[in-house]
Amino acid sequence: MFENAKVEAKANIYFDGKVTSRTLHLENGEAVTLGFMLEGSYTFNTQKKEIMKVTQGAMTVLLPNEESWKTVSENEEFIVPANSAFQVKIEKYADYTCYYVTED
Amino acid sequence: MFENAKVEAKANIYFDGKVTSRTLHLENGEAVTLGFMLEGSYTFNTQKKEIMKVTQGAMTVLLPNEESWKTVSENEEFIVPANSAFQVKIEKYADYTCYYVTED
Repeated sequence: MFENAKVEAKANIYFDGKVTSRTLHLENGEAVTLGFMLEGSYTFNTQKKEIMKVTQGAMTVLLPNEESWKTVSENEEFIVPANSAFQVKIEKYADYTCYYVTED
Repeated sequence: MFENAKVEAKANIYFDGKVTSRTLHLENGEAVTLGFMLEGSYTFNTQKKEIMKVTQGAMTVLLPNEESWKTVSENEEFIVPANSAFQVKIEKYADYTCYYVTED
């Protein structure tokens, strides 16, 4: 549960709606997005470093500079470096939380 | 924008993920859901009276005790009585906010 969040009413829509997320602005000035991906293959670009936590379902990811895909299940997370790209394959669906990390 | 909301990390998932929503608990004790529907035909049952506002995209709805479908577009809303059912058809997608109204 996220407390004292400012939540944007409109979803962020990607890939014709097969990937959507909602932005929460937290009290500490940080933002997280709560997202949902349906079946498909997607490539995402990062600006900040991201911590992606799967909250329901599963996603299979290929991280930058890695050669093998790995499946990330409920309650597992992975880290994506800033200014990079990662690929995701979804078999059924994945519900996730994305934390954006500001680095010094 | 919703302020000071408690937001559940996990989405509510319906119809294999083609309809999802996220629950926000507001300071006044009420809850709203921010939802997203992809292409398809759906029937929903209400418990409380609902005010459904389309925030992006469009949905075509058949309300209880009505005979004709009507299309509801961005920034338009409709009301669904408590303890009833309504049908929705989505051509592309619909992003929506659902307000739950407690009646005396």
